[in-house]
Amino acid sequence: MDSKKQTARISRQTWHFAEDVRVQASAVSVGPKEGEGPLSSYFDQIHDDVYVGQQTWEDAERKLMEDAVTILLQKASIKEQDVDVILAGDLLNQNITTNFTAEKLEIPLMGMYGACSTSMLTLATAAALVNAGYVKKAIAACSSHNATAERQYRYPTEYGGQKPPSAQWTVTGAGAGLVGIGGKGPRITYATMGKVTDMGIKDPFDMGSAMAPAAVSTIHSHFQDTGRTPKDYDLIVTGDLAAVGYPIVKELMLAQGYAMEDMYNDCGLMIYYPEQEVFAGGSGCASSAVVTYSYIMDQINRGLLKRVLVCATGALLSPISYQQGNSIPCIAHAVAFEGGA
Amino acid sequence: MDSKKQTARISRQTWHFAEDVRVQASAVSVGPKEGEGPLSSYFDQIHDDVYVGQQTWEDAERKLMEDAVTILLQKASIKEQDVDVILAGDLLNQNITTNFTAEKLEIPLMGMYGACSTSMLTLATAAALVNAGYVKKAIAACSSHNATAERQYRYPTEYGGQKPPSAQWTVTGAGAGLVGIGGKGPRITYATMGKVTDMGIKDPFDMGSAMAPAAVSTIHSHFQDTGRTPKDYDLIVTGDLAAVGYPIVKELMLAQGYAMEDMYNDCGLMIYYPEQEVFAGGSGCASSAVVTYSYIMDQINRGLLKRVLVCATGALLSPISYQQGNSIPCIAHAVAFEGGA
Repeated sequence: MDSKKQTARISRQTWHFAEDVRVQASAVSVGPKEGEGPLSSYFDQIHDDVYVGQQTWEDAERKLMEDAVTILLQKASIKEQDVDVILAGDLLNQNITTNFTAEKLEIPLMGMYGACSTSMLTLATAAALVNAGYVKKAIAACSSHNATAERQYRYPTEYGGQKPPSAQWTVTGAGAGLVGIGGKGPRITYATMGKVTDMGIKDPFDMGSAMAPAAVSTIHSHFQDTGRTPKDYDLIVTGDLAAVGYPIVKELMLAQGYAMEDMYNDCGLMIYYPEQEVFAGGSGCASSAVVTYSYIMDQINRGLLKRVLVCATGALLSPISYQQGNSIPCIAHAVAFEGGA
Repeated sequence: MDSKKQTARISRQTWHFAEDVRVQASAVSVGPKEGEGPLSSYFDQIHDDVYVGQQTWEDAERKLMEDAVTILLQKASIKEQDVDVILAGDLLNQNITTNFTAEKLEIPLMGMYGACSTSMLTLATAAALVNAGYVKKAIAACSSHNATAERQYRYPTEYGGQKPPSAQWTVTGAGAGLVGIGGKGPRITYATMGKVTDMGIKDPFDMGSAMAPAAVSTIHSHFQDTGRTPKDYDLIVTGDLAAVGYPIVKELMLAQGYAMEDMYNDCGLMIYYPEQEVFAGGSGCASSAVVTYSYIMDQINRGLLKRVLVCATGALLSPISYQQGNSIPCIAHAVAFEGGA
């Protein structure tokens, strides 16, 4: 018992998972624009309609999360009753995508909110609960939808508001991962939980700049806590910093002595082709979730990537905090994956 | 190591904490109406102004949570740096009370959302992380404010909208608990995580009826999983079912063979006097948080209560889900406390 306790806590921010905790299966469901991007062959389901056959945008987002979970259970050949808990979150007020999805599932729910960092917040917590033996199998899930996010955070899409090039395109999709002990799939070895950082940026059309310091804070802590360096990873990705935030992270990390070169990428840059008119790139909970739960898991499972660090980045503002003149608090949570038996 | 794993998971929903996990300190800060209620002598801080000296309602709610955490650290004689993580949530869109509070703290944040069940969702998760050794000390916190909730969920208070007697009064306050191993304070022995239930109720002015079945589901699971009955507890409280939901729980539990008599109460009924014009009673994250982190912890510490079960209840709707004709999904999470050395 003591050996586990000694290894569970590496530092204030970093947890180590000594058991054989794995992402035993994962699934993603996306919208049409994402299906036209460079990672399309890795997605389990591509809808050709942004309404996903539903009457409202909100119902469409729910359907995406439901589909991701349903496909996940099918791929893992298990039933809802075999899963002890679902840890999930989304960007909509009161996490309604999550709540209405969980309503249809016979699985206890732990709702979480970390804006676009929710993908790794839920996965890290799932790994902790599984590693400690509170639950046998846990699902981590999150979603975003371009149209629900636009009308909640900015303007209804019908309004046709103009945007600056630093703006990002919220990814329409959902991703889910099944966490358990043993079996096949990438191992989850470390999680580094982020602190809230705020550099005083107030422009909601420049989330990349706002979130970059949060990513740097968490990645830097991860390296310090684990003794690892960028070279220990085949791939390090941030969640949704896109074209504006990505070079800021590179520069700030280099200033701290960590050269993040070819091994560093950003999910918001990976999910779309530049010519898809997505401004600076993708954003939203689904940006890191969809890329992690499809391409990254696949590449680790096929032995093409051995060690990957996913640092999901979240901007913790609300329209009312922005309107009241507040700056944008940001956070990032990171999870380390490892391939091999 | 195996003994811990065997005892950690009692069932799909219930976790057991084998280590000496305790609420080592707790603190609450409330508004003026709460300070006029029957529990006023237990509160650490009572503000005589609903603006709490701030310019906006939202800033007022933040100040309440900041005050609760600040007082908590003082009472425990520790610094921010001694705390590994804060698990927190509130009712505002994008959890902004939590996010802006955590921004001022040098403590990693795990944001959670379970509507008014957030009090026990955060505390249960904190206990799990501490018991397993991922963190040494964790803060669980949540808040609500009558005026921020009114304008976000219903109408601005200035509008003076009429309400039916089944409506509830959102508690203005915040509560925080410090969870660690050993020392003094009530022990946390079990947590039972809830499933989302939905009885098809669509009236947001009758949350008590909507949430009662979720409370019954979780309390029933808790008894089944632990082998306990109502008589094993000196006090069982639900979070905020108030005068409409409270008798429904009693009736539904009795129908399942569990007589919840004098030992059963509801935080929404405990926090105000009936003559305080709060319709059916109190609601909000702060209802269960403020009562638990003041009166209940005090009574256990003084040996006047030995075993207490707090079942925090949450209505997982949003204004948009209500406007789109959806029913109200609900959830409840329960934590068992125990006194003595």
